[in-house]
Amino acid sequence: MRKKRVDRPDGRYLWYYAFDEPLPPVLDLPQPARTADPLELRIDPLLGEAMVISTGRQDRTFLPPPEACPLCPSRPSAEMTTEIPSTHYEIVAFENRFPSFRSDAATVADESALFARASAAGVCEVLVYAPQHHATIASLPEAQVRRLVDVWCDRYAALASRPEVAYAFIFENRGREIGVTLTHPHGQIYGFPFVPPRPAREYARAADHAAAGGRCLHCDVVAEELAHGERIVATTQGFVAYVPFAARLPYEVHVVAAAHRASLLDLTPAERAGLAQMLQRLQSAYDALWGFPMPYTMSMHQRAADGVARAGDHLHVEFQPPYRTRAKLKYLAGIETGAGTYINDTAPEATAAELRAAAPAS
Amino acid sequence: MRKKRVDRPDGRYLWYYAFDEPLPPVLDLPQPARTADPLELRIDPLLGEAMVISTGRQDRTFLPPPEACPLCPSRPSAEMTTEIPSTHYEIVAFENRFPSFRSDAATVADESALFARASAAGVCEVLVYAPQHHATIASLPEAQVRRLVDVWCDRYAALASRPEVAYAFIFENRGREIGVTLTHPHGQIYGFPFVPPRPAREYARAADHAAAGGRCLHCDVVAEELAHGERIVATTQGFVAYVPFAARLPYEVHVVAAAHRASLLDLTPAERAGLAQMLQRLQSAYDALWGFPMPYTMSMHQRAADGVARAGDHLHVEFQPPYRTRAKLKYLAGIETGAGTYINDTAPEATAAELRAAAPAS
Repeated sequence: MRKKRVDRPDGRYLWYYAFDEPLPPVLDLPQPARTADPLELRIDPLLGEAMVISTGRQDRTFLPPPEACPLCPSRPSAEMTTEIPSTHYEIVAFENRFPSFRSDAATVADESALFARASAAGVCEVLVYAPQHHATIASLPEAQVRRLVDVWCDRYAALASRPEVAYAFIFENRGREIGVTLTHPHGQIYGFPFVPPRPAREYARAADHAAAGGRCLHCDVVAEELAHGERIVATTQGFVAYVPFAARLPYEVHVVAAAHRASLLDLTPAERAGLAQMLQRLQSAYDALWGFPMPYTMSMHQRAADGVARAGDHLHVEFQPPYRTRAKLKYLAGIETGAGTYINDTAPEATAAELRAAAPAS
Repeated sequence: MRKKRVDRPDGRYLWYYAFDEPLPPVLDLPQPARTADPLELRIDPLLGEAMVISTGRQDRTFLPPPEACPLCPSRPSAEMTTEIPSTHYEIVAFENRFPSFRSDAATVADESALFARASAAGVCEVLVYAPQHHATIASLPEAQVRRLVDVWCDRYAALASRPEVAYAFIFENRGREIGVTLTHPHGQIYGFPFVPPRPAREYARAADHAAAGGRCLHCDVVAEELAHGERIVATTQGFVAYVPFAARLPYEVHVVAAAHRASLLDLTPAERAGLAQMLQRLQSAYDALWGFPMPYTMSMHQRAADGVARAGDHLHVEFQPPYRTRAKLKYLAGIETGAGTYINDTAPEATAAELRAAAPAS
């Protein structure tokens, strides 16, 4: 793996990653500039959780036609300049034009003791998986997904080492049904200036479990899911996928490191390959289930970047598709948003059987 | 207010509430029966939170045409039998055919120590605001909304007094954009067998605030919002509406009792009227903002029903509309579901000004 950093006129960086080909030449092209709108964190006085005000995002690019895709290679002959100032590339990471966090976010003053603000210092990266506009994780060559795992490792290490980053959150939104504004295969990495609430709650629970004499909570959960067997969707070298016992959404799947691995950086080469295979198998199963590309959010939970080692440091990847049947979306309504409780209209054992049947033969 | 309980062939109850008219005669009509599918709670081992598996809900009635609305009065002459076996009514509450909780939910065994189950004992009521199929909170006579507040008080007291109910959660889902399956004006009340996570987190925060020497957290927040002023949307007798300092969603509004009122039952008659007026004014502002009925979830937080008095017992009603602009929905994607952090693309001060301008003159 070779890489090259390019600093852009508006102050954003871009990293090219190359494997088969030379690192691409960078063309001198006019480029879209980062929004200059202000950013800030506010601490919710009722919940004690930080949220982000980012008014510049309101104008972000919304479902452009393929010929205007900002994640495709640039085409100088057609006067088409994208986010990536080269005519070819393999994998690219760059700072988001419409960020929720940025390293030079302004310092802000509290409105009052009860209404506290904080700087939205951090980083938001876009990670482009491949130059092919219509590719998917499932359709890419296995070697390309394996390289994506290597790039995730590199970006995770880079973001986690930054002093302002407390949590490096790798995720992907797929499908218009959950609001994706660009369809080119890509994911994102947010370098949070705080440990966000969802992993924080998992950490707290894992600490309780350890204090009560348990092992790593995730190690115990994986062992029980494997022993029970009924909710397993697939296994690969080093990874297990299952519909969790208490799945909030009907086709939710957790992909979990079978052995105790705190982060991507602890995976063996064989496990990195097993993760790539699992991502391809799972997306193939999802897409085969109903014959159309399954939308989902993918969220990677692993060791935080605040320098604290925790009992709950165990790499796992959560997939949450928004459908409850082939034709009906599962909406988050009053029960979910106002009470915080999820009603699942399906049995996890039944949806796991459906996904197993849809998965390609291993 | 007069009321009458009717027990139905499938074991569900129905309460008629009458004000202007006599209590309606109950016709001997064949009625839709409650689903018999199993229900259970599962405790998420990673988060420690209960969720509900309710497979019978998958078949619930989905956007029927107005002439087949199950919440309209029955029309025996047209062989039309609805959920309400009368040709007229004023306000009605009845048990949901497709419940998430029911009083006779089966006892269930844990799958293991780590994978715990619990009975989904509780109650799910549907509350029909008016017999007019096309009415809304804003279009109803003010007297009818005032009566709705009285019925909420009565249902809250009834559910909160049941031994299996730990939290009586009054809510409303409005609009297809958040998955509403019936458009007739109605809300719901869930009698939870546990205090759900969202109010539980508010309680924990309020307890910390009180322990640090503060008053009721909500009393302090209301006072600061009033003093700051910029986010206030409307005030009525006893109630204040504002876009909260840390609004998660662009047009989120909190309607909060101005004085310390633990629950609906503590409101004075003038405050009950003030709540009815506020609900009408807020819905009018929402609907006027973009010229179409604004979808939202409405969630009422107040004293729990588990017999414990808490520092955070203070009546407030949260409205969360799913739009971020007139034409764009705010989706909950990886950041919200996987990290638990909300990115708001708007400034609360700006959306509050928009809603103030759209509100009817008081």
